[in-house]
Amino acid sequence: MKLASFSTHEGSSFGVVRDGAVFDLKKRLSGRFADLKSLIAAGAFAEAEQASEGKGDYPLAEVTLEPVIPNPQQIFCVGLNYAEHVKETNRETTEQPVIFMRVPASQVGAGAPMLRPRESTQFDYEGEIAVIIGEGGRRIAEADAWRHIAGYSCYNDGSVRDWQRHTGQWGPGKNFYRTGAFGPWMVTSDEIEPNALMTLVTRLNGQEVQRATTEMLIHGIAKQIAYLSTFTPLFPGDVIVTGTPGGVGAKRNPPLFMKHGDVVEVEVDRIGALRNPVADEA
Amino acid sequence: MKLASFSTHEGSSFGVVRDGAVFDLKKRLSGRFADLKSLIAAGAFAEAEQASEGKGDYPLAEVTLEPVIPNPQQIFCVGLNYAEHVKETNRETTEQPVIFMRVPASQVGAGAPMLRPRESTQFDYEGEIAVIIGEGGRRIAEADAWRHIAGYSCYNDGSVRDWQRHTGQWGPGKNFYRTGAFGPWMVTSDEIEPNALMTLVTRLNGQEVQRATTEMLIHGIAKQIAYLSTFTPLFPGDVIVTGTPGGVGAKRNPPLFMKHGDVVEVEVDRIGALRNPVADEA
Repeated sequence: MKLASFSTHEGSSFGVVRDGAVFDLKKRLSGRFADLKSLIAAGAFAEAEQASEGKGDYPLAEVTLEPVIPNPQQIFCVGLNYAEHVKETNRETTEQPVIFMRVPASQVGAGAPMLRPRESTQFDYEGEIAVIIGEGGRRIAEADAWRHIAGYSCYNDGSVRDWQRHTGQWGPGKNFYRTGAFGPWMVTSDEIEPNALMTLVTRLNGQEVQRATTEMLIHGIAKQIAYLSTFTPLFPGDVIVTGTPGGVGAKRNPPLFMKHGDVVEVEVDRIGALRNPVADEA
Repeated sequence: MKLASFSTHEGSSFGVVRDGAVFDLKKRLSGRFADLKSLIAAGAFAEAEQASEGKGDYPLAEVTLEPVIPNPQQIFCVGLNYAEHVKETNRETTEQPVIFMRVPASQVGAGAPMLRPRESTQFDYEGEIAVIIGEGGRRIAEADAWRHIAGYSCYNDGSVRDWQRHTGQWGPGKNFYRTGAFGPWMVTSDEIEPNALMTLVTRLNGQEVQRATTEMLIHGIAKQIAYLSTFTPLFPGDVIVTGTPGGVGAKRNPPLFMKHGDVVEVEVDRIGALRNPVADEA
């Protein structure tokens, strides 16, 4: 099942995406769940499936997709998690995953412009696979991690490189308003087996710039969940952005940054394609 | 005016603290504001003041204080922001402030135990002054920053040092569950003039371990607001933790870490004292 958050002229909602149509679960479940995060927290996927029968409520093309989870309690990103990317940044692999955070306001949904801020021309793509937490927990063992995953999505961890390097802590360059993309939907984990082989491809204006598989992750998804949940409880709807492969724009010669009018795409074979235009911030 | 979040056997609320009593604003304002963040977002301080006349609803000693804002949208912390602390950590001053983030689950209120996790014995204090954002905004000029401040509080940016150093990014060591303290209340900014001289003192078991004034901040509060709001909108109730002075436990010889049974106190002269016991996590 594909679940998305979206808005229409009637406001924000969430629902199932199937056969080019959106089934509005806020309406169909009589407002019992305020948003997709609440549906996940209630573990109400069977109800969601049942409620999405019949004819869709809107053509997919007519809704505005929002970030899959517009309001996660926590968004953790894993850095330097593919060998080729570690190498191109002249860093070293660490025994534990590199963790940084994004704020919800830094995200947009599929189709929405990723904004290059006025302050920089070094706006870079980072294609990634996102994990959405289902059942929360603390100190989750690696072996148990998979059953805490509600689903998977695509993520573009858009990065403002000069601001990322202002100091040793990357936060500012990772949190410009509407620079990251998250979508188009999540595919629920009943359709993607634990440790599934997935292929991640990033394209800028149709040209492939990143390609990797989940086999290449240095710190795999189960380890990420175990590590993060050692220090903090994970909550339903939390997002883990699992790392970007080699090929980022900043490390190319010459550098390849995103600019107004570009189109960037992050595709994961078992999930779909997250496509966003790039626009200069007004 | 002093505003606090608290809980009683009747649930969570927020209110005014005065003369050793708490005036319950959730009740007195008929539930119009769900929490202190909502009151701040509505700019309803005059109403709050008016509603807190007469006799208090609870003795202060009988409520459980929660983090001043239990659910901030964003918590930004400034690192290496006093020269003595930069020096003791063998780092260098940066032109822009060092920014890292905390999650709400890492916080406790005054009086609640700060938890030393099972995973470490390197649990360190960091006394700081916290700023609570009132009116939100983006790209706030330094000269305008002061009018975006709702109030000030004390913060203990409790840090698990070995986990902070797992990689170059500090997040894990700064976000263990219930390791940071935020309180006891906020003093509204009408009582603290822009660029006020405030003195910050940290005590461990009654012994002074840190002392500094706001004059010693490398990147002052107005600059912090200007810098942060350049990349992200600031929202009502957001928290900025403005940096810790020299004297942290990890850099003492021998190191001075917090352990079960300790009492740690962060006092700011214009605000009050944030006092917490330290306890091993069960």
